[in-house]
Amino acid sequence: MKLMDLRAYLEVRRKRINETLETLLPPVDTLQKTVVEAMRYSLLAGGKRIRPILCLAGAEAVGGDFDGVLNFACAIEMIHAYSLIHDDLPAMDDDDFRRGQPTNHKKFGEAAAILAGDGLLTEAFAVMTRRSLHPDVDPADLLEATQLVAQEAGFRGMVGGQVVDMEAEDTQPSLELVEFMHAAKTAALIRASVAGGAILAGGDRASVSALSEYGRYLGLAFQIRDDLLDVLGDSRELGKPVGSDEQRKKATYPAVLGIEESQRRERRTVELALNALSEMDAGSDPLRAIAQYLLNRNK
Amino acid sequence: MKLMDLRAYLEVRRKRINETLETLLPPVDTLQKTVVEAMRYSLLAGGKRIRPILCLAGAEAVGGDFDGVLNFACAIEMIHAYSLIHDDLPAMDDDDFRRGQPTNHKKFGEAAAILAGDGLLTEAFAVMTRRSLHPDVDPADLLEATQLVAQEAGFRGMVGGQVVDMEAEDTQPSLELVEFMHAAKTAALIRASVAGGAILAGGDRASVSALSEYGRYLGLAFQIRDDLLDVLGDSRELGKPVGSDEQRKKATYPAVLGIEESQRRERRTVELALNALSEMDAGSDPLRAIAQYLLNRNK
Repeated sequence: MKLMDLRAYLEVRRKRINETLETLLPPVDTLQKTVVEAMRYSLLAGGKRIRPILCLAGAEAVGGDFDGVLNFACAIEMIHAYSLIHDDLPAMDDDDFRRGQPTNHKKFGEAAAILAGDGLLTEAFAVMTRRSLHPDVDPADLLEATQLVAQEAGFRGMVGGQVVDMEAEDTQPSLELVEFMHAAKTAALIRASVAGGAILAGGDRASVSALSEYGRYLGLAFQIRDDLLDVLGDSRELGKPVGSDEQRKKATYPAVLGIEESQRRERRTVELALNALSEMDAGSDPLRAIAQYLLNRNK
Repeated sequence: MKLMDLRAYLEVRRKRINETLETLLPPVDTLQKTVVEAMRYSLLAGGKRIRPILCLAGAEAVGGDFDGVLNFACAIEMIHAYSLIHDDLPAMDDDDFRRGQPTNHKKFGEAAAILAGDGLLTEAFAVMTRRSLHPDVDPADLLEATQLVAQEAGFRGMVGGQVVDMEAEDTQPSLELVEFMHAAKTAALIRASVAGGAILAGGDRASVSALSEYGRYLGLAFQIRDDLLDVLGDSRELGKPVGSDEQRKKATYPAVLGIEESQRRERRTVELALNALSEMDAGSDPLRAIAQYLLNRNK
């Protein structure tokens, strides 16, 4: 798949995802108005939508139609949005801006931001388990995909990685710790996105397993790239200052391995992601192109 | 059912619930140790276990066996535990003690407490959707019960009620607002507990609907009693100071209706809960006894 084709592929899906998120969380005119506004503020603030796109691509890789998993994919984006709101809180990373806008707690206050995160996380599972939103999916497959997402988003995965991230600040982290943290914090939910899409579309065990491995390596490469961009990136393109990880003494790949070795690891990890797809047919070409594309992204 | 029999009934179930919670969240010796310790601290700190008991009783009311829904019931308790951790945070109610022990953030710090709450909420859904933990439950029923819990715990229910509670502090609340808040904050998850148990045990539509109505009224009565205990209770029995709602200008029934009218409402609400069970057989006797018991509780 050529880069130009990939751009069109991503754009079509990003647009459908944004439209679907809007339908899944419409504005309300009730007593809970504030929390829904706070949820919408962060959920609809844009972003790459990489996790839901990977969920759609996982379904397509096993011959499924992306429409059938659109609502589920959007639920995964709700989980991502909740994690950003809570990460930005004063007790956590204490960030004032996200994507050039005030963070959720800066806009709505800390209590509303905590509850908006809780609301998005809970609503994600409400969407995933509502059968009428996934009419073509077998109930057992829906359970399995939801279970995978919950497991990878929880203390074994994303939440666990975040805790380790917090604890590692201002310490001299080991490579083992950085590897665990990145696998848990970023790769876990990305893996669940790709594999979840394949499960929902009725993929066989071998395909789900291959896509799961791809997702894990892709997620790792994605995080190494994030670490590198914080050192090497252009703050205008990134929409945030560079060097903030170093300033906060965050546990990152460059901090542990240096820049060159981190770049080598990134390339090797992308190769491992591509190798995982070696038995998959042309339906996985978008996933192959996404892996190459992420390696070269500047934001 | 006599009061003495009810005590034995509750004690047997509470014990099984506590044992099961321990197996569902064992201590871990990994990098995520801290968050699991913080999750266990609040989850295993005791408590009435009223929501999981009601889930078991919902299953038993439609002829099911409580063992078959024990893991699901414990997942609901995880959601309750998460909500207490987040409610106690400095940005929310800013409480230092809960059940006579330091609150989660006092013990583990604010970041760990936020993440422990997130971890418990996510793990609840991981447990609910893991089929091997509910081997006798039909996948479609498991989805439906999980969906109900997610819906009632989210911005339409518990989270929404909490937001309204925050916003109502220091204002002159209307009865409508207090009614919505209590229905959402407390009754929603209690309703989902009873109805969820009945769904998992294969209860028919009429029974699930009756139990759902029972749960809603019971949850409301439960919250009115909580409000009344804050005014009339004995601080030693409660394990917390009385009068704290008034001090914080919380929106409560006594604040809006006065004590006598609140007591009248409580009795009427318990009657409505009992009426909802009028077509149910003796399998619902424990639920009837629980409603009577709650009306007389002092803590």
